[in-house]
Amino acid sequence: MLAIVIGIDGGGTKTKGVMANEKGQILAETTVGATNPNSVSPRDIEDRLKKLFRTLKHEDQSSFEQGRFCFAGMSGIGESQDDNVLNKVFNKVCASHSIACQLNNDGINALYAGTLGEPGIVQIAGTGAITYGLTQQGEFHRVGGWGYLFDDQGSGYDLGKQALSRVFQAYDGRGKPTILSQLLLDYFSVDEIPELIPKIYTDREARDIIAPISQLVLNAYDSNDEIAHEIVRGAADQFTLNIQTIMDQAFQQETPPQVALAGGIFNRSDVFIPLIKEKLEPYLEINRVELEPVAGAVIAAFKCLDIKISEEFESNFKKGVFS
Amino acid sequence: MLAIVIGIDGGGTKTKGVMANEKGQILAETTVGATNPNSVSPRDIEDRLKKLFRTLKHEDQSSFEQGRFCFAGMSGIGESQDDNVLNKVFNKVCASHSIACQLNNDGINALYAGTLGEPGIVQIAGTGAITYGLTQQGEFHRVGGWGYLFDDQGSGYDLGKQALSRVFQAYDGRGKPTILSQLLLDYFSVDEIPELIPKIYTDREARDIIAPISQLVLNAYDSNDEIAHEIVRGAADQFTLNIQTIMDQAFQQETPPQVALAGGIFNRSDVFIPLIKEKLEPYLEINRVELEPVAGAVIAAFKCLDIKISEEFESNFKKGVFS
Repeated sequence: MLAIVIGIDGGGTKTKGVMANEKGQILAETTVGATNPNSVSPRDIEDRLKKLFRTLKHEDQSSFEQGRFCFAGMSGIGESQDDNVLNKVFNKVCASHSIACQLNNDGINALYAGTLGEPGIVQIAGTGAITYGLTQQGEFHRVGGWGYLFDDQGSGYDLGKQALSRVFQAYDGRGKPTILSQLLLDYFSVDEIPELIPKIYTDREARDIIAPISQLVLNAYDSNDEIAHEIVRGAADQFTLNIQTIMDQAFQQETPPQVALAGGIFNRSDVFIPLIKEKLEPYLEINRVELEPVAGAVIAAFKCLDIKISEEFESNFKKGVFS
Repeated sequence: MLAIVIGIDGGGTKTKGVMANEKGQILAETTVGATNPNSVSPRDIEDRLKKLFRTLKHEDQSSFEQGRFCFAGMSGIGESQDDNVLNKVFNKVCASHSIACQLNNDGINALYAGTLGEPGIVQIAGTGAITYGLTQQGEFHRVGGWGYLFDDQGSGYDLGKQALSRVFQAYDGRGKPTILSQLLLDYFSVDEIPELIPKIYTDREARDIIAPISQLVLNAYDSNDEIAHEIVRGAADQFTLNIQTIMDQAFQQETPPQVALAGGIFNRSDVFIPLIKEKLEPYLEINRVELEPVAGAVIAAFKCLDIKISEEFESNFKKGVFS
């Protein structure tokens, strides 16, 4: 009989739970609100987890009753004193369903979604950016990701900010012209560069306005714009530095690790993989992560149980809920 | 008889008004709230201006009745559609006192406070940074200052952000060690670098927390810290680029302009003046602005009336209210 586990990917905007077997067949899935202990109260986290488990159970009660293990990769864990709070809440909710659970940093999810459970390095670049490494011995490493205010190199927010900076530099005559100017005018539907200011400095979170501009940077890169090339190469250099830092710290004695790239910026892995390979050892295996992070949580759960996932795991998981 | 004018320096946090004569003797002064039309309602601006004029009149009624001209250098003017609002409010309040008034960008205040009414260039670097130029022909130029999100090079906020970025890079092993790490731990009274995060990401405005860190950068510079030297030189390069950009745009046909440095960062003009001179023409006159911006508004008012300020203006103005 196939084993059944629950994997949870908990984040600052939403928390996804999936019940699946080691073939990667998804038996039930659901999404509830944010569960980052830095921004959500223990009370709300508890309510959300209860709802998550209740829904999984409701979707497939007989499978749920076979499942006795849950792995939760949670954002914000390992960074503050809130870890105990999160552990307590999880243990309480899981115990009420007679499920054992293990918590860890959500970097594990992203990593295992890319390496299918092998050790390696994952470079994440979405709205924010962070790099994780996990060795054969289970040592976890982290580089970057200290927040958008001063440490977001290579993130969508960073690329968008740089585009704006360069466009205003060009406007002032301090910097070279770039086609990003016209792309930004079109994107925000304004006629003059200074009119961008009220579009950017609004009551909305600046990251949500600026991060999508990274897309324009990649469009300008495709059009061989010099400034866009500088910005994209700068981001690739940051990714390379982060990956190299973790290789030096953790993988010197091992065979070269797999490197996985996750997050919206790597929708353009065709651009970034060659740029990263240029500077890292060329025999290194670098791939775009194909599975969503919660798949990594499911894989982590099977690893905890010492159960090998089957070869069809990836293709099955991609198909969504199994029926 | 000496002429009497009113100078106003209107900003995003406060608005200062001074009544003075051409000798720089201050007859009355007062400070009211913010009057930046981007953030304050026309109604509140009107109330604040009424209060400002009322207080100046109350402080020295006979001088007030001789004064018939006001120059107001206002932040946020010339950047949006709000200029008309501001002009209307000013004309209304001034008319009720039979005072003529002229409005302009507050860059004029900073510039004239530095050049005592001569054409020139002012580089401002406080919490934010911006560069203005004014030619003999009255053309006004502006470079930078497009806001802290993406255009604040050389500001206190920028220097502070860079310090944090470098300290976390060193912590991760991505960057060189710097004594800024210890300086920051001491400044925020924490033991480990990650404990800085909750000190920086709070409900308070991040700029108010980060900009003062620029002071630590200058302390580390004095101790010959390599990273601090890179940050400070980077800021000096930005100032140089901005000043050079305005020289190229506006002063090619003229004798080299005076360059004035204003704002908290240039409390360390001993550091920045040599670094800026290194790259700009060495015969250029670069000085720290000694007078507060509202003095520039008073000087601008006298220029509007074609009255020359006297040689004692600067020393008298520094003395404060004349009695």
